[in-house]
Amino acid sequence: MSETQMPTPRTRVVREAHRGVYDRETAYKILDEGFLCHVGFVANGQPFVIPTSYGRKDASLYIHGSAASRMLRQMKEGIPVCVTVTLLDGLVLARSVFNHSMNYRSVVILGKAALVDDPAEKLEALRLLSEHIIPGRWDDARQPNERELKQTSVLRIPIEEFSSKVRIGPPIDDEEDLSFPTWAGVVPLEMKVGTPENDPTLQPGREVPEYVRSYSRG
Amino acid sequence: MSETQMPTPRTRVVREAHRGVYDRETAYKILDEGFLCHVGFVANGQPFVIPTSYGRKDASLYIHGSAASRMLRQMKEGIPVCVTVTLLDGLVLARSVFNHSMNYRSVVILGKAALVDDPAEKLEALRLLSEHIIPGRWDDARQPNERELKQTSVLRIPIEEFSSKVRIGPPIDDEEDLSFPTWAGVVPLEMKVGTPENDPTLQPGREVPEYVRSYSRG
Repeated sequence: MSETQMPTPRTRVVREAHRGVYDRETAYKILDEGFLCHVGFVANGQPFVIPTSYGRKDASLYIHGSAASRMLRQMKEGIPVCVTVTLLDGLVLARSVFNHSMNYRSVVILGKAALVDDPAEKLEALRLLSEHIIPGRWDDARQPNERELKQTSVLRIPIEEFSSKVRIGPPIDDEEDLSFPTWAGVVPLEMKVGTPENDPTLQPGREVPEYVRSYSRG
Repeated sequence: MSETQMPTPRTRVVREAHRGVYDRETAYKILDEGFLCHVGFVANGQPFVIPTSYGRKDASLYIHGSAASRMLRQMKEGIPVCVTVTLLDGLVLARSVFNHSMNYRSVVILGKAALVDDPAEKLEALRLLSEHIIPGRWDDARQPNERELKQTSVLRIPIEEFSSKVRIGPPIDDEEDLSFPTWAGVVPLEMKVGTPENDPTLQPGREVPEYVRSYSRG
């Protein structure tokens, strides 16, 4: 699907259409700040929505999991999926309940997942996933062996049919509500990284590495 | 569906089965700490996953939106939906890449959404939604008028068929990896509430209310 066909009727933002954004740069920025997605797939007519982590390279999104998981068993059959990433930035308090909102950035990707068979692409996808979540960790950890690679399935989802939705800024109240006697504004929300907690079985002399101490998103 | 039938084959946790939790108390605690869900539904064979806020009363989950939204138009037809709430608590860094994980608490609810027709239940559901996101706001804001109520659809999803999944604690490495020369432990993640930002059009004398200043989750 070429870029010029975006959005498709399926990805066009219907509600609050002015918040729909269809360029690749916006989508990639949101995808690269987040690392948790919600994957939707259908089994026996029932939709399932499962949280999982992901990585990205160019126009490919990678997810992984145990070969034993319901999600991966279903999805590797090439069924349609939806991958949604949402970053929550704040509560928007208007004077009227009706105009309350949230500041957020989200991406919705529609497509079909394909099982990554090639061992080199699979290992590279696992590296991308790891480096997407916490850059620097892959080279500092014990990398997957043959047995572990066999137990892991990796799926590739093309980032072809997608849309983003972005809301930023203060509340938008109706003119006649501006004098209503209440506070209005935004309560910012963000992901806070806490102090790293050593594994109780950590051997002496293993210091918290710099890529963990300085970890942040966005 | 009676409690004793839980989990159903559809909600039984397949992957990492020991993390599956099926009691109502655990699910309600997770649902009450979060306020953002991802709703999955199917249209023309394609799953869609849309982020939205929710409220809860007893065994009913409420979501709302514009009557113009794709999600609500589809869902009020009584089609099967999946509502997933995920709270992310930390990155779990094991010695081996394979044993890396995340600490999280999630709930998956399967069911059919029903349109809330009764005006009293609809207004009460909107109050629950508002109070779920930020307790104290409803009474302090301009409440919905007839026109706004007409533009808003509210859906009720029964919390009957559901499962929770919980991972807590340090990494679990293979015995033979414990001496691998790297740091291992947990990087805690939580939602941080920032300093409230006044609406630029705020009238003089409107102070940030206590329920906003002391806002936190969990």
